[in-house]
Amino acid sequence: MRLSRYFMPTLREAPADAQIVSHKLMLRAGMIRQEAAGIYAWLPLGLRVLKKIEQVVREEMDRAGAIEVLLPTLQLADLWRESGRYDDYGDEMLRIKDRHHRDLLYGPTAEEVITDIFRAYIKSYKDLPKNLYNIQWKFRDERRPRFGVMRGREFLMKDAYSFDVDEAAARRSYNRMFLAYLNIYARLGLKAIPVKADPGPIGGELSHEFIILADTGESEVFAHGDLVEMGAPGQDIDWDGDLEPLVAQRSCLYAASDEMHDPSRFEAEVPPEKRMTARGIEVGHIFYFGEKYSKPMKAMVTGPDGKDAPIHGGSYGVGVSRLVGGIIEASHDDAGIIWPDAVAPFGVAVVNLRPGSTDVDAVAEQAYKALGELGKEPLLDDRDERPGAKFASLDLVGIPWQLIVGPKGVAEGMVEIKRRATGERQTLSLEAALKVIAA
Amino acid sequence: MRLSRYFMPTLREAPADAQIVSHKLMLRAGMIRQEAAGIYAWLPLGLRVLKKIEQVVREEMDRAGAIEVLLPTLQLADLWRESGRYDDYGDEMLRIKDRHHRDLLYGPTAEEVITDIFRAYIKSYKDLPKNLYNIQWKFRDERRPRFGVMRGREFLMKDAYSFDVDEAAARRSYNRMFLAYLNIYARLGLKAIPVKADPGPIGGELSHEFIILADTGESEVFAHGDLVEMGAPGQDIDWDGDLEPLVAQRSCLYAASDEMHDPSRFEAEVPPEKRMTARGIEVGHIFYFGEKYSKPMKAMVTGPDGKDAPIHGGSYGVGVSRLVGGIIEASHDDAGIIWPDAVAPFGVAVVNLRPGSTDVDAVAEQAYKALGELGKEPLLDDRDERPGAKFASLDLVGIPWQLIVGPKGVAEGMVEIKRRATGERQTLSLEAALKVIAA
Repeated sequence: MRLSRYFMPTLREAPADAQIVSHKLMLRAGMIRQEAAGIYAWLPLGLRVLKKIEQVVREEMDRAGAIEVLLPTLQLADLWRESGRYDDYGDEMLRIKDRHHRDLLYGPTAEEVITDIFRAYIKSYKDLPKNLYNIQWKFRDERRPRFGVMRGREFLMKDAYSFDVDEAAARRSYNRMFLAYLNIYARLGLKAIPVKADPGPIGGELSHEFIILADTGESEVFAHGDLVEMGAPGQDIDWDGDLEPLVAQRSCLYAASDEMHDPSRFEAEVPPEKRMTARGIEVGHIFYFGEKYSKPMKAMVTGPDGKDAPIHGGSYGVGVSRLVGGIIEASHDDAGIIWPDAVAPFGVAVVNLRPGSTDVDAVAEQAYKALGELGKEPLLDDRDERPGAKFASLDLVGIPWQLIVGPKGVAEGMVEIKRRATGERQTLSLEAALKVIAA
Repeated sequence: MRLSRYFMPTLREAPADAQIVSHKLMLRAGMIRQEAAGIYAWLPLGLRVLKKIEQVVREEMDRAGAIEVLLPTLQLADLWRESGRYDDYGDEMLRIKDRHHRDLLYGPTAEEVITDIFRAYIKSYKDLPKNLYNIQWKFRDERRPRFGVMRGREFLMKDAYSFDVDEAAARRSYNRMFLAYLNIYARLGLKAIPVKADPGPIGGELSHEFIILADTGESEVFAHGDLVEMGAPGQDIDWDGDLEPLVAQRSCLYAASDEMHDPSRFEAEVPPEKRMTARGIEVGHIFYFGEKYSKPMKAMVTGPDGKDAPIHGGSYGVGVSRLVGGIIEASHDDAGIIWPDAVAPFGVAVVNLRPGSTDVDAVAEQAYKALGELGKEPLLDDRDERPGAKFASLDLVGIPWQLIVGPKGVAEGMVEIKRRATGERQTLSLEAALKVIAA
């Protein structure tokens, strides 16, 4: 992409009402624009990051055996009356009447819709387990939306729903998601801690939240230090095998957010040198809720014994748009965002310090072309701007590499590269620079 | 994907209320499920096709220089009051009040939102031309939704918006979209005809609809036969160059839908042997509307003369979800859907005729693995079903190739391949079969 033709409206200052660093940086980097309270348009740079996160989530869901569907944003109120949640849900549910005065709502989650789909088609235990997931916009009418995409009203969520014949099988589905979530966060360059959680309005008996570590995080987390070190299980585990040991290894170590924290247990279970206290952000929530939806909605399968019984369900959410903010909270400095390579909107910025100079243009174009062929998704900064302004905006938007082409270097056959995360600079031939960036 | 683990709920019969062939086939193939009148869930197979179409549209927009953004589904009513369309739009607009009684609406289109974004950031003619596009769910509260995804209420649309300094430049933007649309439809395996159109509620002076040919299409189209033969301009045209000749070559030939048809002009302008009358489906609509939105909304840029003037705008829509139905209308037979390769949900089905037989399983697995490595996105039919039932469901869902592995063939070192579109069958070694499919 040539920056002269792109649309990356960076701002010198964030609007005064932006309180947290990710919100400020997303506005300044021209990633989003507020359209209404808690409702954002994603500008080109923001959308590129959102899509990359979405794709990582999709790949890890697929790997863990879940199957993608796409549910509509609007749902029938009648389905929520069947489960009994329509009246319970409160003011966060955006209730809508269509032209024929039918009650619709903008889905805040989709347990009812997916249970209705399941019961329409699946009748036998032989077709289980099934896990259907959906990456779609949701709406929760927060009383006081704030913190940008971190607590928006219209937000992109990945929600998966598992269906199993009994509790033991449902637990296996739960374990697959538990581990897939750790893999997702690891691929996004995040340190994530699973903590026992309160199921809240989704309901059920067993629930974990996933909290990523960020100094500017909204909540406090207390955990055994080994849990952070242990990290993700990796993608090559046997997803059909017994995952209980991998889950137990992690869930037996103490971890709690402030709401659920028990200081006496923390001190009893964790030796002093392993007691970790940190700030974090909740970016995922998984639930096993058994027959909570299948019983009232009659989602039954015939078991091996020939008898019909309600399925055992779970649901599993990742806040995809929220993660954009979460990653920034976890990875920024005074100059701006520092994207992990996996989600960077562009892999490298080719900075042409003198657009219009034939020699400099030629090298910049050559670098741009070569980096495109290497699959590095280059952004060519061919704007007619001062070098200082270019560096400042590229630091702000957080492109992982800058490859700088100026008249002095070109005369000597050299370019400069800079790594955004460390600020480290090297002067090299173009060929050598491409090798470093491609490595 | 292994069919035994997938979710492809095919039906023997379509529900009685499905009237047109694409709606019937999408329900029977387990591609969609109706959630409310005109609101559909996309089941796994349907979603795969929808995503492929979306990706073709995205690639051709990018190639023509448009830049992707993502607008929220909900919009502020106040923006529509600024343009004067809030009261005009009528009952098709889904009007919503949030918990604080603010007026929102579910966007049926986004001229106002994008004009508001433009005016916030872009001030100089030097930043033009700009074309921003958006692939997002829209809602139009049709009085009588019908024909499945062809006339749904919640639908996926690609909408692009161009901004130019004057009418001549806006015409260049219009031309880029005109030609990009022809490339999109060609890649999707469709024959498309651009016809002059009534701008309707979008407004403006210049407008074309794109009608794809399908015997079961909703409207009649009259055109010069050469227009159909001429087809798309191809991707390698100079998008920055003068595109007027390529557009004029096409728009000077007679083409009209029934609403705009003028029989006397048709007879005067088209020699008898070139007069084509056919059924078709509208799947795209482009508009040049000048200052219609920029003037009331004050979207101004400073021109080369230092004076501020409202920009000249256009908008360009492709019905992405509608195209799923449109392609089926254009490409099916009595047995079911015939997907063009570019949008097929899977490239090839490996049909294991005797799951559980060690030899047959081994060859089927080998074929499945090899086809995956070839990037052909294979579906392995490992279900415990009669061969006849397997063939019927694979014909119904329209996978372009079947690679059939049975005990007799395996004993002889042979497999059979079948091309869905023609029914043509060949018995070959696995190696030779893979070569044919990969070709």
